[in-house]
Amino acid sequence: MSVLPVSSSRAEPAATAAPEPRVKIPVAVLGATGAVGQTFVQLLDAHPWFRLAAVAASERSAGKTYREAARWIGGEMPRAAATLSILPCDPAAVDAPVVFSALDAAVAGEIEAAFARAGRIVLSNARHYRLERDVPLLIPEINPDHLALLEAQRAARGWSGGIVTNGNCAGIVIAMALAPLHQVFGVRQVFATTMQAVSGAGYPGVPSLDILGNVIPFIEGEEEKIERETQKVLGRLERGVLHPAPFAVSAHANRVPVEHGHTACLSVALEKKATPDEAARVLREWRGAVADLDLPNAPVPPLVVSDAPDRPQPRRDAWAGNGMAVVVGRVRSDPILDLKLVASGHNTIRGAAGASILNAELMLARGLLTGA
Amino acid sequence: MSVLPVSSSRAEPAATAAPEPRVKIPVAVLGATGAVGQTFVQLLDAHPWFRLAAVAASERSAGKTYREAARWIGGEMPRAAATLSILPCDPAAVDAPVVFSALDAAVAGEIEAAFARAGRIVLSNARHYRLERDVPLLIPEINPDHLALLEAQRAARGWSGGIVTNGNCAGIVIAMALAPLHQVFGVRQVFATTMQAVSGAGYPGVPSLDILGNVIPFIEGEEEKIERETQKVLGRLERGVLHPAPFAVSAHANRVPVEHGHTACLSVALEKKATPDEAARVLREWRGAVADLDLPNAPVPPLVVSDAPDRPQPRRDAWAGNGMAVVVGRVRSDPILDLKLVASGHNTIRGAAGASILNAELMLARGLLTGA
Amino acid sequence: MSVLPVSSSRAEPAATAAPEPRVKIPVAVLGATGAVGQTFVQLLDAHPWFRLAAVAASERSAGKTYREAARWIGGEMPRAAATLSILPCDPAAVDAPVVFSALDAAVAGEIEAAFARAGRIVLSNARHYRLERDVPLLIPEINPDHLALLEAQRAARGWSGGIVTNGNCAGIVIAMALAPLHQVFGVRQVFATTMQAVSGAGYPGVPSLDILGNVIPFIEGEEEKIERETQKVLGRLERGVLHPAPFAVSAHANRVPVEHGHTACLSVALEKKATPDEAARVLREWRGAVADLDLPNAPVPPLVVSDAPDRPQPRRDAWAGNGMAVVVGRVRSDPILDLKLVASGHNTIRGAAGASILNAELMLARGLLTGA
Amino acid sequence: MSVLPVSSSRAEPAATAAPEPRVKIPVAVLGATGAVGQTFVQLLDAHPWFRLAAVAASERSAGKTYREAARWIGGEMPRAAATLSILPCDPAAVDAPVVFSALDAAVAGEIEAAFARAGRIVLSNARHYRLERDVPLLIPEINPDHLALLEAQRAARGWSGGIVTNGNCAGIVIAMALAPLHQVFGVRQVFATTMQAVSGAGYPGVPSLDILGNVIPFIEGEEEKIERETQKVLGRLERGVLHPAPFAVSAHANRVPVEHGHTACLSVALEKKATPDEAARVLREWRGAVADLDLPNAPVPPLVVSDAPDRPQPRRDAWAGNGMAVVVGRVRSDPILDLKLVASGHNTIRGAAGASILNAELMLARGLLTGA
Repeated sequence: MSVLPVSSSRAEPAATAAPEPRVKIPVAVLGATGAVGQTFVQLLDAHPWFRLAAVAASERSAGKTYREAARWIGGEMPRAAATLSILPCDPAAVDAPVVFSALDAAVAGEIEAAFARAGRIVLSNARHYRLERDVPLLIPEINPDHLALLEAQRAARGWSGGIVTNGNCAGIVIAMALAPLHQVFGVRQVFATTMQAVSGAGYPGVPSLDILGNVIPFIEGEEEKIERETQKVLGRLERGVLHPAPFAVSAHANRVPVEHGHTACLSVALEKKATPDEAARVLREWRGAVADLDLPNAPVPPLVVSDAPDRPQPRRDAWAGNGMAVVVGRVRSDPILDLKLVASGHNTIRGAAGASILNAELMLARGLLTGA
Repeated sequence: MSVLPVSSSRAEPAATAAPEPRVKIPVAVLGATGAVGQTFVQLLDAHPWFRLAAVAASERSAGKTYREAARWIGGEMPRAAATLSILPCDPAAVDAPVVFSALDAAVAGEIEAAFARAGRIVLSNARHYRLERDVPLLIPEINPDHLALLEAQRAARGWSGGIVTNGNCAGIVIAMALAPLHQVFGVRQVFATTMQAVSGAGYPGVPSLDILGNVIPFIEGEEEKIERETQKVLGRLERGVLHPAPFAVSAHANRVPVEHGHTACLSVALEKKATPDEAARVLREWRGAVADLDLPNAPVPPLVVSDAPDRPQPRRDAWAGNGMAVVVGRVRSDPILDLKLVASGHNTIRGAAGASILNAELMLARGLLTGA
Repeated sequence: MSVLPVSSSRAEPAATAAPEPRVKIPVAVLGATGAVGQTFVQLLDAHPWFRLAAVAASERSAGKTYREAARWIGGEMPRAAATLSILPCDPAAVDAPVVFSALDAAVAGEIEAAFARAGRIVLSNARHYRLERDVPLLIPEINPDHLALLEAQRAARGWSGGIVTNGNCAGIVIAMALAPLHQVFGVRQVFATTMQAVSGAGYPGVPSLDILGNVIPFIEGEEEKIERETQKVLGRLERGVLHPAPFAVSAHANRVPVEHGHTACLSVALEKKATPDEAARVLREWRGAVADLDLPNAPVPPLVVSDAPDRPQPRRDAWAGNGMAVVVGRVRSDPILDLKLVASGHNTIRGAAGASILNAELMLARGLLTGA
Repeated sequence: MSVLPVSSSRAEPAATAAPEPRVKIPVAVLGATGAVGQTFVQLLDAHPWFRLAAVAASERSAGKTYREAARWIGGEMPRAAATLSILPCDPAAVDAPVVFSALDAAVAGEIEAAFARAGRIVLSNARHYRLERDVPLLIPEINPDHLALLEAQRAARGWSGGIVTNGNCAGIVIAMALAPLHQVFGVRQVFATTMQAVSGAGYPGVPSLDILGNVIPFIEGEEEKIERETQKVLGRLERGVLHPAPFAVSAHANRVPVEHGHTACLSVALEKKATPDEAARVLREWRGAVADLDLPNAPVPPLVVSDAPDRPQPRRDAWAGNGMAVVVGRVRSDPILDLKLVASGHNTIRGAAGASILNAELMLARGLLTGA
């Protein structure tokens, strides 16, 4: 299978306005009928660089149209997607060079490998490969250089394509808030307590009888993900080897009756002392590593810092930057460590589908989708 | 198949009913029309030792009956209270030796002092006197000996009565969960993130437009209270002087769309190492300092330790021990400190009105309400 | 001021405790692991006349204990139930003369018939037999005489046991509110719009993503049930034949983000004119048909009529009469018909499990469980 | 005071795309700090025809900037508004020819009259003048001809300006759904039960303790408004006299825990029989009376008819047509009358501020803002 040519103007993205490739790149979504899959379909509708060409899902949806197979949970299903036929999650059936994976963890390992082996670039939201040494756990604003791992990945695994992952929904929000602090002051310790929206559990997900007027102080596997992924995202690549950032994270993960938007209360110890004002300024001025690329889904700025005493709030702030910005507020002193702050972000956009798409945008801008 | 006959006889009633004093002690509630005041009125209805004899509130309710003045927010208003006339918050008008104060912080200072000066025992839920050196911040299961401060209080202030306070709603829940750990292992550091119910803000309190489907990561003054009260509650009284417990607390306070029940995620450093199993056993076996007194509102046990992976939950656990028990769960290792755990308790009962009433029960059992 | 001494004596316990049969009747619950099944188990715990002897459920729970098989959604699972083994839904395996059925409609038809054939009395919450001519659709306060249908049922079907059903959860609330009006004034037309709690959909039931901060104006099959069952409940039995009440019902059924408690807004046309005051008095004075039997779960009075301008409210009123009373309020004129009113009741207690248990209590009191 | 000239192209609006006046008309918002006032400010930000020139509010906000005076409840406050100074609600102070009124009913009567007397066009969301014979109760898609009442209004009251009102938030949604049916089949009777969002009560509005997990079956004055306004909106103007539509409405109004979006369940009797399919087609094909004017806030189509079995839902459908479309669904037979259907619309946009702005757009397009 060959990859469609990307307009050569993409190799060196223009300096200012976002250009469009002459021909949009056809992309597929694996696991397209679930909640994250639907968010992919929504965000890819009218994407300037990508065209949703195929939707794939499990056997029981095979042969149906997307409209028939997906119980759409948002507003209106995009028309172009509605009439697509559901394909099996098999590279032989899915004819697209770029594949977004919203697969369940249980099946993601094998299926994603099959696509990578078949020469496709897989942008995965599944956790299966996130902590593998040769797989980028990518947040463009933070660690675009981690894409260099792809070379080792291809060499080691004999794949002509590759897998690039994004972090778990809460971890991304936390990593975004920590990145500027880590870059300037060095993060030494993090205590994080999350309050996570129900959309993070997919659909049907959390039963209403469990969460109406309630808090559930447990999300399976979530605390471990937060405690292990953050260091990799903020890690340093040296001579092709990734060194995780040397700080420890302690996480409490809670489910709360919020539709969209994960909120994290953070207590942070720094290597180099900083006042809350200094920290807030660093957060506010941060532009991230890819501000010059004008990626369609890269928010400007990546972090919105609020001065209000009671923000961020998920219902009011989740849509900042079209759901791609992380809102930070209440930057203040911690009586034990250095700083307390609160971060909030849209879990199915910045924390899932939007993250994968932004990763693909970065790869396209860097010429990494051509010749895949 | 035959059905067993229904006996016409009735079983002998069980032998162990709650004893009642021959004559109940008349008590008053100050600030009786507000949310906490209503909880006092509710909990005092049919109390075995106390009889609600008077309700007092601000000027604008004067002359009305309680039914007219209080916009009742629970199920049914107790009948005995409904016909009481609202009195002014003045010891000359309120003829009761024991007074529960649900007053706003703004007015509690002067009014409570006036009652103490007039020889009344004031059980206060207001924060005004909580951190005064000569005022007990009392939780019967933890620090009943702190009542000895009353003597110094009377001497210093020239009062014939006295003021005994309870902690803020979230602080009580946290202190209850920490007490057994502190007694056995020594607490060294605490990171606490609370998710607090709307009833903690009184009535009308939190506007629904602010909290429906949302989290508000700010409650005015709450973090400071949690960070400062816990040490006093767990402090040691030596030769009449109270030495606060020498650990630091870092708190994040959040409002969540829950009706009743504050939940706290705790990361705890101990002086003496303990495994989660050891800690859970200590919590489970703890009976507190007043188990032998059979106080009507003292829950047995004071802490309910859950083995479920996803408890405590406020909506399901707030009513444990009739709202007076604190439910603890998820006792596990912390990757930075020693332990993580979650505690939840009913904020207007264990965390407010019930706490004051339990304090009064302890004082009665200790003979401290006589001669007031 | 002196404090009254606390008496060391204890008051004599009140004389009127509930009588208990010498030997409780063993009962079983079919479909015991689901939401309604759990409510049966909860309500039967410590029931004065019945003893939970067996729990039955589908194949996949077979062999497990109840604790293992049921994902308990309330507070604490009753201890006696926790260790029962799950039996198959087969009369050969379930050795109890009285059987409560919380089965899904899909399987209730055959299984309930098998039990009735085997001589058991089946108190069914399933809709399968509700509208059969020879099956009572029983509400003790309204139509206890409909039990006479059992004779025809046995004759026609050759059963030695029998099936007695209760109505659907919303229909019961509506029928209770209409019954006194129908008895005194005659009901001619009813427009009913319900706002139903999520617990009515079982567990996991309604996904939180669907209902948080939302209204769903559709509940499958519900409007039809409301429109057809009410007339049978209020129907007249003549010479063994049931004549449904001759009024029409138009229903809109909505799901709202409420945990427990269905609310119905009713516009009612009467045969005989009545002012709102007259109607409210009739509702308030109504005692129902079985007030003299002192059934353990029969609320006194069956209807609670509120004068408050904004009641009933499900969260505040669902637990009236321990969940068995229906609360009625806002009785006022209708600009087109005669009356508007609002009724609310606990859907899994009065509207489901409690309804079946009350039916069994009536049958026991009438001697209809003997010789089953 | 003179009114700024409106581009003459507005007198005869262009046939296709929305043109912009050469100079935007300066407008003011009265009661700008409240919830509806904020919605006006939000919707006027970047309006193609109007420019927010002044904000006015009660005495206690006088002298502050809008940023200081308004506790902003949405996402971000528009920048242009933030720095405006709050003016008193007095035509001498507010220099704008067109005035949107979000005033409380208590003060709207006098203040709006003062502005109309001073030559201003007042687009009022307050209920004070809605039912006056000489004041249009305007919904552009339904009754644009009612604007002719302005002449009589000016003559009778001696005003050089005038007052045009929009209906109450629930009434507008209901009137929109009924209009096509009334035009084609004639409406004879309507039973309406509403489930209304908390934003309809303003801010702080409904306390969270009242509405979390609850339904309140009462909204002061709301049922009367729904029962009386609908007929005027759908009334017929003959020789300058308005004849209300001759049908009766019975309304139940409920508050539900929804942020935005009022939902109404309707049972409708028609003069001329119609099947649900015929009714749905009429609703679907309706374009309203002003489709040719391309008003900036007029949704195309005004009604969105859903075929889904469970729509409309407020959280998912309130934003249809940018909050200006009403979504209708579940068009089906009624067992007593002719039709059942459900309608839902955004209460603070289509039901309040957006309605007033659309009214102003119609007046501008008709040349009625010139020479005011």
